[in-house]
Amino acid sequence: MSLLESIRGPRDLDALSIADLDELAGEIREFLVQAVSRTGGHLGPNLGVVELTIALHRVFDSPADRILWDTGHQSYVHKLLTGRQDFSKLKGKGGLSGYPSREESEHDVIENSHASTVLGWADGLAKADGLCGRERHVVAVTGDGALTGGMAWEALNNIAAADDRPLVIVVNDNERSYAPTIGGLADHLATLRTTNEYERVLAWGKDVLQATPLVGRPLYESLHGAKKGLKDAVAPQGMFEDLGLKYVGPVDGHDIAAVESALRRAKRFRGPVLVHCRTEKGRGYEPALADETDRFHTVGRMDPATCAPVGPAAGPSWTSVFGAEMVRLGAERPDLVAVTAAMLDPVGLSPFAEAYPDRVHDVGIAEQHAAVSAAGMAAGGLHPVVAVYATFLNRAFDQVLMDVALHRCGVTFVLDRAGITGPDGPSHHGMWDMSLLQVVPGLRIAAPRDANTLRAELREAVEVDDAPTVVRFPKEAVGEPVPALRTAGGMDVLREVPDGLGHDVLLVSVGALAPACLEAAALLEERGLGATVVDPRWVKPVDAALPELARRYRAVAVVEDNCRAGGVGSAVAQALRDAEVRVPVCALGIPARFLAHAKRGEILADIGLTPAGIAGSVATTLARASAPARAAGSRTAGKGVGGSPQESAKGTRGSAEGSARASEESTA
Amino acid sequence: MSLLESIRGPRDLDALSIADLDELAGEIREFLVQAVSRTGGHLGPNLGVVELTIALHRVFDSPADRILWDTGHQSYVHKLLTGRQDFSKLKGKGGLSGYPSREESEHDVIENSHASTVLGWADGLAKADGLCGRERHVVAVTGDGALTGGMAWEALNNIAAADDRPLVIVVNDNERSYAPTIGGLADHLATLRTTNEYERVLAWGKDVLQATPLVGRPLYESLHGAKKGLKDAVAPQGMFEDLGLKYVGPVDGHDIAAVESALRRAKRFRGPVLVHCRTEKGRGYEPALADETDRFHTVGRMDPATCAPVGPAAGPSWTSVFGAEMVRLGAERPDLVAVTAAMLDPVGLSPFAEAYPDRVHDVGIAEQHAAVSAAGMAAGGLHPVVAVYATFLNRAFDQVLMDVALHRCGVTFVLDRAGITGPDGPSHHGMWDMSLLQVVPGLRIAAPRDANTLRAELREAVEVDDAPTVVRFPKEAVGEPVPALRTAGGMDVLREVPDGLGHDVLLVSVGALAPACLEAAALLEERGLGATVVDPRWVKPVDAALPELARRYRAVAVVEDNCRAGGVGSAVAQALRDAEVRVPVCALGIPARFLAHAKRGEILADIGLTPAGIAGSVATTLARASAPARAAGSRTAGKGVGGSPQESAKGTRGSAEGSARASEESTA
Repeated sequence: MSLLESIRGPRDLDALSIADLDELAGEIREFLVQAVSRTGGHLGPNLGVVELTIALHRVFDSPADRILWDTGHQSYVHKLLTGRQDFSKLKGKGGLSGYPSREESEHDVIENSHASTVLGWADGLAKADGLCGRERHVVAVTGDGALTGGMAWEALNNIAAADDRPLVIVVNDNERSYAPTIGGLADHLATLRTTNEYERVLAWGKDVLQATPLVGRPLYESLHGAKKGLKDAVAPQGMFEDLGLKYVGPVDGHDIAAVESALRRAKRFRGPVLVHCRTEKGRGYEPALADETDRFHTVGRMDPATCAPVGPAAGPSWTSVFGAEMVRLGAERPDLVAVTAAMLDPVGLSPFAEAYPDRVHDVGIAEQHAAVSAAGMAAGGLHPVVAVYATFLNRAFDQVLMDVALHRCGVTFVLDRAGITGPDGPSHHGMWDMSLLQVVPGLRIAAPRDANTLRAELREAVEVDDAPTVVRFPKEAVGEPVPALRTAGGMDVLREVPDGLGHDVLLVSVGALAPACLEAAALLEERGLGATVVDPRWVKPVDAALPELARRYRAVAVVEDNCRAGGVGSAVAQALRDAEVRVPVCALGIPARFLAHAKRGEILADIGLTPAGIAGSVATTLARASAPARAAGSRTAGKGVGGSPQESAKGTRGSAEGSARASEESTA
Repeated sequence: MSLLESIRGPRDLDALSIADLDELAGEIREFLVQAVSRTGGHLGPNLGVVELTIALHRVFDSPADRILWDTGHQSYVHKLLTGRQDFSKLKGKGGLSGYPSREESEHDVIENSHASTVLGWADGLAKADGLCGRERHVVAVTGDGALTGGMAWEALNNIAAADDRPLVIVVNDNERSYAPTIGGLADHLATLRTTNEYERVLAWGKDVLQATPLVGRPLYESLHGAKKGLKDAVAPQGMFEDLGLKYVGPVDGHDIAAVESALRRAKRFRGPVLVHCRTEKGRGYEPALADETDRFHTVGRMDPATCAPVGPAAGPSWTSVFGAEMVRLGAERPDLVAVTAAMLDPVGLSPFAEAYPDRVHDVGIAEQHAAVSAAGMAAGGLHPVVAVYATFLNRAFDQVLMDVALHRCGVTFVLDRAGITGPDGPSHHGMWDMSLLQVVPGLRIAAPRDANTLRAELREAVEVDDAPTVVRFPKEAVGEPVPALRTAGGMDVLREVPDGLGHDVLLVSVGALAPACLEAAALLEERGLGATVVDPRWVKPVDAALPELARRYRAVAVVEDNCRAGGVGSAVAQALRDAEVRVPVCALGIPARFLAHAKRGEILADIGLTPAGIAGSVATTLARASAPARAAGSRTAGKGVGGSPQESAKGTRGSAEGSARASEESTA
């Protein structure tokens, strides 16, 4: 039995010697490389926090003490030490989450994978502990990258305001969030790192002093004051201390004894303390250390020895198509600039950055600043393209509305990972954007269906210079081109009603769901139902030609990879009502529920966004449209059709055939 | 002719002596007190920046140089110096905006009144200037309060990263945003203020050195370095310098010569510089200086001598009803805590703070932190009530979704100033919340119609401990109680169909629009149309009883003081579709347009949310429902009714009778 296997919970660490712990750290690294290679997952960040996590669980008593992880993708070691060592289905359906999960363990608190939240959570928990008179420690583990986010600043400002709440902030400083961390803060952290030697000399003395509880704090503070004066002789005093936070460090994050010592000092202080811990992302795995592009932040299934991908090769990704087109556009348009929020490579902007280094801005994990500085650049005559994951744009909603749209700035937002993403779970699905953005006056949204339309719609987007534009597409491979037969207004007609069938349904296919809609239309044809499939290309505003086109059909179905509530389906329904078109609308999309991690295809099947699911829902709508209505105001009667009304009403999960309209939530 | 009247533009300031400028400052203060007393508006902030604004326009050459104002309510002096001296209709329809406005002047840039944006705009403009090779200065005026917002941090981090962009940041430090500014930053600014004397000694020397352009910067930097060492002897080195920003100050913001000197030094530096300027909010107006609650931040119409309000007395406000009920709830529930984002008094929490000082947290202008720390407090066993203006919740959308809702935290958000607010213009209307929040799983929204339902629904909201709840209400007086006749499901029935009339329309009245809906029902009765009026109380989720109730009517009209796109009307329409209720739905609300400043009543009339507007739209819907349909799938034919179809289709502004469904935006 390995040391790792012997650890059933954090307290099993107590009896181990430092030598044992170093051995355990080695075993954990080996486990991580092997396990994550089999499933895919976050590798680099977890390899960097092995010793830190061990030390945290030695010094603090989770779950009585609360250990909080920012962003959460570096919680694998924490999982291993808290009774979760079956990584065989990591991030897969029914397997371990890639983030902390309260369903999995009482040791987990924050499930959200959006960065920079942990200090806010810690402030809230510490406030609650104070009011409730609970004696425990709140420990927030954050990173140098996460500190570039505005929420971190708001929280630090609040935490520093009260000096009586025991709250330990561990800054896991690996000098990179995804890419190297940028900005004034990064420079400042670099300066602080130079004080390392000095700290070591003083650490021993403080530990001795603080072991005496009654006099410990006043003495610590005097010493701290003295140290401040001394330290200023060799290095700048830290901004954290300027804010009123006690600062401990920097400490070598791979030296378990040193980290433990720093954490014990921080724990004894009983006020807010910041522990600056230097770590190396990818530690112990040569390919990760050798890679400069941070490719090992997240990995797919791979051979751990050669790093060669395992499994069938996917075609080119949506991301890479976007990235290549940006390079071409950059050559044509000297005013085009690109903005990324600490994800230059994941959003496909590396080629653009290489071609035009002066025209790309990485703002840090700071989506608000990405949007508002883009507004400023647009006001200065440039056309910024802000590329972010769809789910992260939620952070910048107010700036898109108030800074970009209100000021009629020509800024293009490119939303990667829109729709169901899959293994990263509820906080990664990009299922909110087409609902949120519906309210933004003047904003236009394109949802390309393939590589050709992505290129074309991106070009159309950057031509708009007086309003925000959005181009959104999903994760993974872009798939085969889906040609248009003809256009109708601004829309592409992808399929006509087959000869001999009626104008039963107008299928409005949003973006990458075009192939599924075409297959659904074929299934409907087998049932004797005639379907036209159109891709509106631009889904906001609703195309002017859509209402008149819809009038010719017995029903309209809108299929979108986005939250049903307030999405494209709702907008189409409203446009039809406003144009006095009384055709029943079937809005298929993602229910407003938080969806757990699984493969994208599995989730789409669960929510009925498959060809069979779409066809079933459409058939139900058509059957309803033909049935004698119970409503007083619409005494319609049409011919019977083949669709079976298998979809149940609001309040149930829906049938096997069509559950995309499944209940979002129960009523009061 | 006064000095002020002689100023037609900034360059008219050039010829004036310091004595003249002091006289001008006095005239401006007198003007502001008199003018703002007549119309209402932001008084305290503008009285504080008179000398600063004069100095800015002397040193910089607007509009070639760009002077940007954070939040914008302190731009009155700027308006006076840039050709806008007619304040007679300030904030009124057709009058001057209370914020900068590009329509008014080429000297204005940012119109958004949401705080903390200016540094992001400045960073973007400076980046554009750099890429385009433009030689000009970008000057961002922000405040100590605005610096507590996360966006400010994100921007500082980016600005500090590039030392070659000429960008002057003026921190107008009046030690209070609305209430006194809180947090570690505030303490740090206080420390910086102590270095004042020291700065004065050095200032003269630097000015002389820097007047020599070629050697100026290197010399400045050497001197600056030396100064740093010296200053550390008497005061901590600043966090701004730790971040890599040059720091000048603090300077007395009411000493025009001193401010000019500091600004000229900053201007010559040609990199990012922060000028710390101390000012006094309300300067020169005794009542404002004597008031500790910041009542003079914004004033209504008043007698400038006695400060007595002018005009008819309004009844109790929604805000005060909420505030009083919070005090009662606080007595019953020791776990209830309140959170405000720098607006304790404006959101009505002062009485609660007085009664339970340990249970109220002012987080600064930091809505993100308000939400995420509330999630933490809820996880720690408390029930936080976060009270903010509706429009400012946009800043915290991601935290409401990912931190509060995903974690099933019992947090109540109280949204004051929901709906049309009026004179503060497009960025103050609270017209987005009920659309945005529709997508948040599990979240419930109450829209009380009067004081009684506000109290009751607030109590129901704080009872929910596993999901976010929202209670939203408008600005101004709460009005008379609107009694319920009976309930239907969870809904209050406010009016039944009169005897002898048919079940023509079910009017679903959201929140404070109940009186208007009741009057609209009476107008419909005059036309022979029968209307039932229900108040759903909780508008999300849609009440389970609504679809069955709706089935009995020829049409349903939903009337909401919120953006039509994705709002309550959309949600009701979707619920009816899902329940197979085929009754036409008329969704009346605010068009997705930015609405200029005017009185609340004037705007409601413009968008058709008046009794006559509502009745007209409903009558149109009923007439349409009865007319032979043109759609292939719904060959209905009903009896003719009295409503005249005066509402035009999508694409026009709508008729006199019902324009609430007016076009939101044109299609491509």
